[in-house]
Amino acid sequence: MAVVVQNIERAEQSVVDGLAECGVATVHEAQGRKGLLASYMRPIYTGASVAASAVTISAPPCDNWMVHVAIEQVKQGDILVLAPTSPSNAGYFGDLLATSMQARGGVGLIIDAGVRDIRDLTAMKFPVWSKAVFAQGTVKETLGSVNIPVVCAGELINPGDIIVADDDGVCVVRREEAAEVLEKSRARVALEEEKRKRLAAGELGLDIYKMRERLKEKGLKYV
Amino acid sequence: MAVVVQNIERAEQSVVDGLAECGVATVHEAQGRKGLLASYMRPIYTGASVAASAVTISAPPCDNWMVHVAIEQVKQGDILVLAPTSPSNAGYFGDLLATSMQARGGVGLIIDAGVRDIRDLTAMKFPVWSKAVFAQGTVKETLGSVNIPVVCAGELINPGDIIVADDDGVCVVRREEAAEVLEKSRARVALEEEKRKRLAAGELGLDIYKMRERLKEKGLKYV
Amino acid sequence: MAVVVQNIERAEQSVVDGLAECGVATVHEAQGRKGLLASYMRPIYTGASVAASAVTISAPPCDNWMVHVAIEQVKQGDILVLAPTSPSNAGYFGDLLATSMQARGGVGLIIDAGVRDIRDLTAMKFPVWSKAVFAQGTVKETLGSVNIPVVCAGELINPGDIIVADDDGVCVVRREEAAEVLEKSRARVALEEEKRKRLAAGELGLDIYKMRERLKEKGLKYV
Amino acid sequence: MAVVVQNIERAEQSVVDGLAECGVATVHEAQGRKGLLASYMRPIYTGASVAASAVTISAPPCDNWMVHVAIEQVKQGDILVLAPTSPSNAGYFGDLLATSMQARGGVGLIIDAGVRDIRDLTAMKFPVWSKAVFAQGTVKETLGSVNIPVVCAGELINPGDIIVADDDGVCVVRREEAAEVLEKSRARVALEEEKRKRLAAGELGLDIYKMRERLKEKGLKYV
Amino acid sequence: MAVVVQNIERAEQSVVDGLAECGVATVHEAQGRKGLLASYMRPIYTGASVAASAVTISAPPCDNWMVHVAIEQVKQGDILVLAPTSPSNAGYFGDLLATSMQARGGVGLIIDAGVRDIRDLTAMKFPVWSKAVFAQGTVKETLGSVNIPVVCAGELINPGDIIVADDDGVCVVRREEAAEVLEKSRARVALEEEKRKRLAAGELGLDIYKMRERLKEKGLKYV
Amino acid sequence: MAVVVQNIERAEQSVVDGLAECGVATVHEAQGRKGLLASYMRPIYTGASVAASAVTISAPPCDNWMVHVAIEQVKQGDILVLAPTSPSNAGYFGDLLATSMQARGGVGLIIDAGVRDIRDLTAMKFPVWSKAVFAQGTVKETLGSVNIPVVCAGELINPGDIIVADDDGVCVVRREEAAEVLEKSRARVALEEEKRKRLAAGELGLDIYKMRERLKEKGLKYV
Repeated sequence: MAVVVQNIERAEQSVVDGLAECGVATVHEAQGRKGLLASYMRPIYTGASVAASAVTISAPPCDNWMVHVAIEQVKQGDILVLAPTSPSNAGYFGDLLATSMQARGGVGLIIDAGVRDIRDLTAMKFPVWSKAVFAQGTVKETLGSVNIPVVCAGELINPGDIIVADDDGVCVVRREEAAEVLEKSRARVALEEEKRKRLAAGELGLDIYKMRERLKEKGLKYV
Repeated sequence: MAVVVQNIERAEQSVVDGLAECGVATVHEAQGRKGLLASYMRPIYTGASVAASAVTISAPPCDNWMVHVAIEQVKQGDILVLAPTSPSNAGYFGDLLATSMQARGGVGLIIDAGVRDIRDLTAMKFPVWSKAVFAQGTVKETLGSVNIPVVCAGELINPGDIIVADDDGVCVVRREEAAEVLEKSRARVALEEEKRKRLAAGELGLDIYKMRERLKEKGLKYV
Repeated sequence: MAVVVQNIERAEQSVVDGLAECGVATVHEAQGRKGLLASYMRPIYTGASVAASAVTISAPPCDNWMVHVAIEQVKQGDILVLAPTSPSNAGYFGDLLATSMQARGGVGLIIDAGVRDIRDLTAMKFPVWSKAVFAQGTVKETLGSVNIPVVCAGELINPGDIIVADDDGVCVVRREEAAEVLEKSRARVALEEEKRKRLAAGELGLDIYKMRERLKEKGLKYV
Repeated sequence: MAVVVQNIERAEQSVVDGLAECGVATVHEAQGRKGLLASYMRPIYTGASVAASAVTISAPPCDNWMVHVAIEQVKQGDILVLAPTSPSNAGYFGDLLATSMQARGGVGLIIDAGVRDIRDLTAMKFPVWSKAVFAQGTVKETLGSVNIPVVCAGELINPGDIIVADDDGVCVVRREEAAEVLEKSRARVALEEEKRKRLAAGELGLDIYKMRERLKEKGLKYV
Repeated sequence: MAVVVQNIERAEQSVVDGLAECGVATVHEAQGRKGLLASYMRPIYTGASVAASAVTISAPPCDNWMVHVAIEQVKQGDILVLAPTSPSNAGYFGDLLATSMQARGGVGLIIDAGVRDIRDLTAMKFPVWSKAVFAQGTVKETLGSVNIPVVCAGELINPGDIIVADDDGVCVVRREEAAEVLEKSRARVALEEEKRKRLAAGELGLDIYKMRERLKEKGLKYV
Repeated sequence: MAVVVQNIERAEQSVVDGLAECGVATVHEAQGRKGLLASYMRPIYTGASVAASAVTISAPPCDNWMVHVAIEQVKQGDILVLAPTSPSNAGYFGDLLATSMQARGGVGLIIDAGVRDIRDLTAMKFPVWSKAVFAQGTVKETLGSVNIPVVCAGELINPGDIIVADDDGVCVVRREEAAEVLEKSRARVALEEEKRKRLAAGELGLDIYKMRERLKEKGLKYV
């Protein structure tokens, strides 16, 4: 039952790049408020912002053997997504693996477990979103799989899905919906820009969004 | 039962500003070790330090409608305090609302739930202390209340109470006790300054605070 | 049962300094993947990296009296390790105690509880790894002990053991094993340096570590 | 600042008894979905169901001295409500204190901390709702207060407020609203009884509550 | 995007019943150690053991409207599986909905959120596995979906998949793999029966499973 | 570094049995409020109460191989104590291992991880105190050690130390202190019996323990 799927489909790079510009909060809203990984997934340093195609790893607890296997499958612009088969916060990943990832064109890691060497990773500008920072070492004993669908931090992620990640967290976009989500995201960004100006000028959301009447209907009392 | 209280009393601004200078740890001690919100309330960036009058929001879970209502009640120097009626870590607040807050003179947000767009908020220097960073969107469906007493992160907060917040967390000071707490806080600061010098010179707390005898009485043995 | 042990043995300073250079992840691996404190122990600021001999404190919950007692026992290059006898996240330690520590040559604090004044501590470059940041004040009512073995964040720590701490967390090394662990750590560092170069050049871990055959034997399928 | 308020007002006993019959879920709904303590407050045994007037305790962490003080203030049918001033899961209360409570007519304990001797308490039919079961002993060193307003498990509780507690958790009812809440609770019970019969007969909530049209309006699609 | 899928495929009832007899631990092992929901999913009472076809609900936080919609889709022997779209521990489900479920032939509920009226549910023998027991009421304001794939407590669950649940927790079996998993589960049960006899007679696992040699090879030392 | 220590010293059985009668809360107090394992260690069923000599296991995460090795070292009246080397809630132990334990005279399990088959274990009256109930299976790949000192749920446990466990949790008593702790525990039990009678008769702790004067001295005000 341990497999490595070698050929996965990826979204067009221009679409992926477009999603990176929009950011997690916008993309999540644009696709109907879905796709967010659990809020315990935090970046190891602030300021990173990526979108990339997912190479997925289903790994045994405290065993990072499959990370080596997965890196061979990474193409320029990909991101690793690791979900352990039993909850773990062990440190599956450190600066050596990041060096290997960068050499292959990989741009980051999403891991529902631990990461270590975070000072080096920060210096290398290799972003990671993880459940924990923990130096706990792992073994290389048991097989897992690469590029199968996984549930990571509460969300289903298929190989080739697009991961959008920034300081707000991590969001997954289905590969086949990516172009449409990008379009809707860009529309949101444009709309928000206009609203930001009006709000900055002192207008109230109550007026811009015409909320006063509905609030009254629902029964809000001012005293 | 959904109300907006429009006229709340606030402490004198000079008192509020004075508390900001003293900081959370000092103010908390000065008022008798009370008033701290739960330690899970963390700032989205380090270095922010504020004191401000609370405009309170009791909001339904995952519904940020009342934030719009509350911003209209914000006066120069106020801070929003949001407590959901059921536990939630949804992202009630982002950069558009922060823009509106800043346009009205609001100086920050305390939220026992989630916040998003934290990169923008950091760039805007709009500080937030929250339970979570989470991009999860909210709806505008159900009423709540503005400027009623709320329990936020384990502490009772009345509208007009003073919120003191910095890297150590968040503390509430009752409006009617604010002047007295400020006085006591300043006395502590002065006292600490003197002690800091003696400690920096190598004197021991054991001697400065004359602890040796009481330790002996209680039975401490040196071996 | 409250005692202060005044004479503890410490490892040679050159060994301690050597461990600091290797860092937590390497040291932990070199000593057989043991000695890590729980992953909830986090630094109050990033970038600090220390190794130091432990002066241990067993303290009652929310009572920091023994910290004063312990500081008198601190020698140049020591670090305090505080374990409460009942779980607590109170703020046992702030800038005054840090001032006293620095005056005595102390280099940091490991605390399975809370710390406060973290802005000042950061400015002073006094690193702390703690379970919580919390301004909650403490009392000085009940005795504890100094320099007895304690269990801190899940690990046994004897007085004089070496604490290694950096952005990845905290690791303890037994004093009597320190020289050997340093040797093994340095061997790892050397080995990693070589591997880093090969990985940076694009070689795969699968080849460098000769994993392909064993993966095949275990039954991994490429599809 | 340590006080014992000796005369508190209590609701009429018939009202308190009436609320006990309605149970937590019904009372909470009847008063507008408010008043629930955090869901981590769990009973030490199942099947207990009480309503009682609150005698409140604000206690230092890991110090149960004030429990002794509070028991003297307990009248027939009262319940103790203990909130520590700093988070703690120490075991403030055991079988001896429960024996004393029962001798004074006290009917239970709500504690945002730990409890111990739970086998004895179960045998005595003395119900406790707590954050933790923990044998950790406490001291008698520091004063606290009795019968002041406290925030317990996230809810404000005034002395004399009515506590309703059963297997679903704990709810507080303001003393001055108790009679009205009882009336509304009984109305709900009556209404539910009728609905239960219709549902048991196989009718659907969709029809009983006439939801189909509104679902259609909102855009629900059946496929 | 709110849909109700009315026709879902279900596994053969004899297969479902067979899985119920095998229990969670065995079924989970038999299908390759996969399919377990997070360990925080606990039964409201001990002793219940079910297997049933999943009718899934994707529900907004604190909004149980879709539960009413879902019950209409329930057939004899089905179980509801509810996943909120944002984390929530509100009490979506109580005795009235359970009455309706039982009238339709539904046999239980799996909910990654809260449940209430647990005394009544226990008396009715209506088992629930939930993240929380919490009386917190919900609203009926926002649409969700019924019988779409959901991620519940970390596992993907498709409508019609088989849920196996007992005191050990909850496991999902893919509908299309159910017959095969049943076969493997029964083989495990048979095998375990034999081993149980030998172990009960005092034989050691070390001998029954012939582990001694491999332990020696790996380097285990007896001292 | 993987060892099995075959000969460990055990306390006299009469002492162990005596401690069982006293229970966790009493023993913990009698030995100076130390020795309690973390409060998350809960029994799988209520009513069990044991004292036994510890056979300790240091096990890799999600690998239960060493449990088989340890059972061979178990003597009549022993209890297993398992601490994983990295945090895990996998189900290391189930009914087959319990059958083997009972056949060898073992009386229970303390595990800072998960357990499964809890219905069977309950029926067999084999008590377990664990961090989690979780069916997650384990492997048999990596060595660990048996009968070395371990830190389990925050406490150091040496092989041969006495474990006392009941509904209140788990406490460890050093083997060499066991006789003295038993004596002190029995003295406490006797003392408590007398107090229980006085409290049951309505006397107050305030009077029995002569607290009134000290409370007054400390400044308690009755209003």
